[in-house]
Amino acid sequence: MSAPRDSEPQIGRSVLRKEARAKLTGRAPYVHNLVLPGMLYGKLARSPVAHGRIRHIDTAAARDHPGVHRVLTGEDMRALIPDPHYGPAFHDQPILALDKVRYAGEPVALVLAADPHVAEAAAQSIEVEYDELPAVYDEVEAMTSKAVVHETLKPAGTFPDLKHLAGKRDTNIALDFHLRRGDVAAAFGRAAHVFEHTFKTQQVLHVPLEPFVTVAEPGDGRLTIHTASQSPSFVRSEIARLLGWAENRVRVQVPFLGGGFGAKLYIKLEALVAAAALIVRCPVKVAASMEEQFYTLTKHAATLRIKSGVDANGRIIARACEVWWNGGAYADIGPRITQKSGFTAPGPYDIDNVAVDSYALYTNLPPAGALRGFGIPQLVWAYESHADMIARAIGMDPLEFRRKNILREGRPQATGTVMRDAALGEVLERLAQRMRWNEPFDRGSAALRRGRGIAIGFKASISPTTSVAIVTVNADASCTLLCGTVDMGQGSDTAMAQIVGEVLGVAAEQVSVVHPDTDVTPYDMATLGSRSTYHMGNAVRRAAEDARDKLLALAAELGLAPETTPIPDLFRHKYGMQAGNVIGMGSFVPAYTPTDHASGQSDNVTPFWMVGATGVEVVVDTETGHFEVTRLVNVADCGEAINPALVATQLSGGAIMQLGFSTSEQMLFRDGQVTNASLAEYKIPGMLDMPARIENEAVAGNERGGPFGAKGVGESGTFGVSPAIANAIEDAVGVRLSALPLTAEAVYRALRAKRGEPLEDA
Amino acid sequence: MSAPRDSEPQIGRSVLRKEARAKLTGRAPYVHNLVLPGMLYGKLARSPVAHGRIRHIDTAAARDHPGVHRVLTGEDMRALIPDPHYGPAFHDQPILALDKVRYAGEPVALVLAADPHVAEAAAQSIEVEYDELPAVYDEVEAMTSKAVVHETLKPAGTFPDLKHLAGKRDTNIALDFHLRRGDVAAAFGRAAHVFEHTFKTQQVLHVPLEPFVTVAEPGDGRLTIHTASQSPSFVRSEIARLLGWAENRVRVQVPFLGGGFGAKLYIKLEALVAAAALIVRCPVKVAASMEEQFYTLTKHAATLRIKSGVDANGRIIARACEVWWNGGAYADIGPRITQKSGFTAPGPYDIDNVAVDSYALYTNLPPAGALRGFGIPQLVWAYESHADMIARAIGMDPLEFRRKNILREGRPQATGTVMRDAALGEVLERLAQRMRWNEPFDRGSAALRRGRGIAIGFKASISPTTSVAIVTVNADASCTLLCGTVDMGQGSDTAMAQIVGEVLGVAAEQVSVVHPDTDVTPYDMATLGSRSTYHMGNAVRRAAEDARDKLLALAAELGLAPETTPIPDLFRHKYGMQAGNVIGMGSFVPAYTPTDHASGQSDNVTPFWMVGATGVEVVVDTETGHFEVTRLVNVADCGEAINPALVATQLSGGAIMQLGFSTSEQMLFRDGQVTNASLAEYKIPGMLDMPARIENEAVAGNERGGPFGAKGVGESGTFGVSPAIANAIEDAVGVRLSALPLTAEAVYRALRAKRGEPLEDA
Repeated sequence: MSAPRDSEPQIGRSVLRKEARAKLTGRAPYVHNLVLPGMLYGKLARSPVAHGRIRHIDTAAARDHPGVHRVLTGEDMRALIPDPHYGPAFHDQPILALDKVRYAGEPVALVLAADPHVAEAAAQSIEVEYDELPAVYDEVEAMTSKAVVHETLKPAGTFPDLKHLAGKRDTNIALDFHLRRGDVAAAFGRAAHVFEHTFKTQQVLHVPLEPFVTVAEPGDGRLTIHTASQSPSFVRSEIARLLGWAENRVRVQVPFLGGGFGAKLYIKLEALVAAAALIVRCPVKVAASMEEQFYTLTKHAATLRIKSGVDANGRIIARACEVWWNGGAYADIGPRITQKSGFTAPGPYDIDNVAVDSYALYTNLPPAGALRGFGIPQLVWAYESHADMIARAIGMDPLEFRRKNILREGRPQATGTVMRDAALGEVLERLAQRMRWNEPFDRGSAALRRGRGIAIGFKASISPTTSVAIVTVNADASCTLLCGTVDMGQGSDTAMAQIVGEVLGVAAEQVSVVHPDTDVTPYDMATLGSRSTYHMGNAVRRAAEDARDKLLALAAELGLAPETTPIPDLFRHKYGMQAGNVIGMGSFVPAYTPTDHASGQSDNVTPFWMVGATGVEVVVDTETGHFEVTRLVNVADCGEAINPALVATQLSGGAIMQLGFSTSEQMLFRDGQVTNASLAEYKIPGMLDMPARIENEAVAGNERGGPFGAKGVGESGTFGVSPAIANAIEDAVGVRLSALPLTAEAVYRALRAKRGEPLEDA
Repeated sequence: MSAPRDSEPQIGRSVLRKEARAKLTGRAPYVHNLVLPGMLYGKLARSPVAHGRIRHIDTAAARDHPGVHRVLTGEDMRALIPDPHYGPAFHDQPILALDKVRYAGEPVALVLAADPHVAEAAAQSIEVEYDELPAVYDEVEAMTSKAVVHETLKPAGTFPDLKHLAGKRDTNIALDFHLRRGDVAAAFGRAAHVFEHTFKTQQVLHVPLEPFVTVAEPGDGRLTIHTASQSPSFVRSEIARLLGWAENRVRVQVPFLGGGFGAKLYIKLEALVAAAALIVRCPVKVAASMEEQFYTLTKHAATLRIKSGVDANGRIIARACEVWWNGGAYADIGPRITQKSGFTAPGPYDIDNVAVDSYALYTNLPPAGALRGFGIPQLVWAYESHADMIARAIGMDPLEFRRKNILREGRPQATGTVMRDAALGEVLERLAQRMRWNEPFDRGSAALRRGRGIAIGFKASISPTTSVAIVTVNADASCTLLCGTVDMGQGSDTAMAQIVGEVLGVAAEQVSVVHPDTDVTPYDMATLGSRSTYHMGNAVRRAAEDARDKLLALAAELGLAPETTPIPDLFRHKYGMQAGNVIGMGSFVPAYTPTDHASGQSDNVTPFWMVGATGVEVVVDTETGHFEVTRLVNVADCGEAINPALVATQLSGGAIMQLGFSTSEQMLFRDGQVTNASLAEYKIPGMLDMPARIENEAVAGNERGGPFGAKGVGESGTFGVSPAIANAIEDAVGVRLSALPLTAEAVYRALRAKRGEPLEDA
């Protein structure tokens, strides 16, 4: 660390990640490394049955296993907590299964032992008798299936718009969202062309390389929870709610995360571990294995039907979207995805007549929740595949078709919200330039054919929401930031330190950042939805400005020149020694109008818009169906980049993650049981899967509401990847795939079908 | 915990200590219990020589000891830190001895091993050759001794009034303080009587039952120090200064303390452990033994000469005081004691002509520092023994003599500061009433004679000083206080929670208190000098008021009635869910005028005055000299008591501690070596030493500057104990003791001398 460099701007500088050295030297703290004196390790016994009534749990063998301290079941949870169900949107998920199980892999019992291997061995000896029940796995079937996952809906009360669902029975629909704008039927009637296509996405996994892990430590009428969580404030309030405690009796501490991507939101292991620790009165740790991540939280499979009316000039004049979200056995945040992403289902296009019907469905699969994009990549997959199919059908260049229809600044989006600071047009043009769309393109020859595709998506940010931050200036001018944003690899510590540094005229390297600890770091809604740079960034900026204003007031009080008096001198004059500190506080609550329940309309549906577009070039082997993405171009509007290097890694990181979801990743099931629950059989992208050329560009934008013009960019790279690849494959070899993942086998089958060749296994 | 009881006052309620259950169940965290992975234990080799030049340190045998990781000496410290000397007033104390040793017991080398027993055994094998130097042990001799402890004075620069001492050579006087008021010589000239007496106090120990302990944990360019410290903010800035680091790279965390009493202020083991951890790059723990406390910090022995001129009516018209403080080998905070207590040396009496000369002296004894009273008990010992001796000599009742001379509200004290909110007269009268001073008193018979004595003292509080606090109100109305006050047994967590509760209308039991952690709790000067209730209490009150004002503003913003809207409803209306928090910040810097260097005068020398008086009844065995304190009455002005039960335990706790210093405790030396460094040979009061009757009374007072009229009371019980006992002994058997401790042997010898009987050993 060097002396403050007052003159150097901190915003727009690619400051090295603050934690880089700590991570490289192995000094960065993770919950996985935490060992407390007298700590017990817990291992779970899980249901092999997808839907069934529990007749009997026999824990005798496990209890008798040498070294086992205790075996807990749902009834132990019920003895501690009268209604031991948690969840951010619905209180539907039991800490351990009660009465019935709703998916294969659901936790049924917890074995505690001082040695984790003992606990694991004993957990395998637990015998459970089930009365199996009919199960439902498909999201569309779930609409009408007689197999009902939950007898009664139990909305959490957190969201006022879910309240009307309380007590609803015999339905798998956790939430239905509807949007109506203009006169859709009439517009379809006068359309020159009407297109309707159905798309499907598969169930996939977040795969943070650090699996779920939680340690709970009982204190005197208090509980400290060390957890790899993206939402420490939520963990605190939800655990307090379950226990009937005041929030200040629960302390949640979060060190670094080895990735989150939405998996580590809300409650995962925390309620289980907290309850177990209170029951056995000693610290308890549960660390999930990689396999167990498949049984904990996933990304929604979805079926998307999209129908567009296009006029003779290629303008979209009507669009109807139906989306069925496969939420699995427990709602998690799925209903919010249904609603919050639902209103962008028609895409970033200027369409006067729109209808959206979006359904969150319970099925007997592992629960699905937020995953980097919060439903947007599924929607973009549909509407950007659909866009190319229309363009192709009406003989228009796909870029031209998008140009003609793109939502421009000042025009209303489907909800009625007028677009502001969403550089859709600019992002599309920069992508076209990067792709040299109008220049000749080598289409390959013989069996290796080349193609290219583009896609563009957009996303609203989350509301209602709030962030609070504290900035402390010490007597030697060093600064400390207290903020609840979780640095899970995205570099938030660094970006927040840059904001503090910019305001206070201090190098970002000199600002230390205290990690989330609900006793001391102020409230933050959660680290999700690319909200931190904007929301927490604004709170941090205000906190730093508050500290700066107090320093200026101190200088004025002392009669010292604020511009030329070093901060340490202010303190020395005030206190007669190097003593005291100045504390700035800032909070941020964006303005927001919820969508109207009947019409889906809102005049201010989001604090800011994210825009991301992807272009790809592929080469396809027409004999084998094998294809390769040879070039991947990501362009996004991130407003003013606080740290350009971090923005670039966010863009390429998001795109590569989505590349895996687009081309290889897929959870496979037999009777509801995952059959490929290991990284040996579930293929995430490795270094050899990287496109030969990856380019990232943040268009010069300015988000008027963001700190120094910045906005979030953590998800923007994911939006367009899947449809851009499908569009490129069709461009190369003329086949259209409508279901993810886009595998060599799928291309091969489509090519055979196109050529009228029978398939061996058909 | 129950629901908030808005109507119940929190101030003046004897709330149960918040930590009571945690301490009783063994769950309260202490640094002694902290074990970190890969931690090394350090044990010290210490000098047997009181003053000597180090010729050679042979660490070979220790290094070769199986299991030893590393052996460090002063030269290793110098390699890490160019000038490895620390101290709050003078940078005079080396982390490990360099070139020479200045007292027997000074740390010379540190042995590190994974097993503390290995480290201890190895430490004993370190051989050091010394060239012994002449030593000085007596504080009066040190004024003129040729044995010079420090070649050069190195004031810390913390205190501007020490700066002129920098570089002074060949003196043992670390600081001399002088006060002149009126014309002392003239007043002595016209006095009816002049009395001069000399008193002595012995060197004693704090004896916290938790000895010194520190753990340091190196991080990535950072260092976390877990330490049993009363001054976490000082530890942070001093370690940062030594390392040349910014303060935010050093994190100091303090859990509960098992007593402090002034011993755990400033730097004790922290610099050593921090440096060792940085050198070996892994966590290091050093835990002192009870014996080692004798070599770390003690209470000043002092010689006090006091001379008074009294007129024919018994009014004191002139007083001259000379005080020599035996600071031992390193200054610690001793020079501040010399100055801060020096100006009260003439006692709480209304005397127009005063002279004080007070000297802080270096000697070759273990260092002396602050101990519950910061020099005041030594001064009261002198001036209240002197008071009785004068009263007896002029034939006046000792109560009447005090009544006639006591400083009344609105009159100037020796510094010129006008007395405000110091209930000296009321405390004296309440003590007289409690003692039934004017009623007949059973004086015993035969060999068992009874007597009684009183004494009254006062103390200024510390300045300049500052405290900062943060109060967080959570969305469920539970509150958290972040404050740097160390709860070392005095119950500060509870009292601070009561202040927060009173302001916010919440039960104190529902306010959680975060313990000092310099990364998150704001600056506080230190927990010392009974300053916390007043200084931090004011900061906490302001922080709570700031939070309350923000809640009221929120209600106004939302158009809700502030008096009838529950806090959770405010948050729900604001954020649409149970989210967010409100953060209040408060800081407090009392007004203060330093004493003038030449005259010792100040118009505002203290934020508030503490007043404490003690009355005792004794029974003395005239044959053996054995005496017993049968009744101990403590009366103090604590302003408005925030928690009456805590005030009572502070009063009796202070008095009992001082009872030990008065009657049994005494460090014994041979050639500068402590000869009774164990609790087997150094006698602290046990349950059987308690007076049969102990009474505590806080007079109804009101401190206008304090939070809800409160002020500190942690030291007031100590002031009068020693002279009250000596006065009672003289009252019983007619002998006057002028040196502490007041032992049976001393009484016996005095009785024999009075009767003209030779002593066997004379």
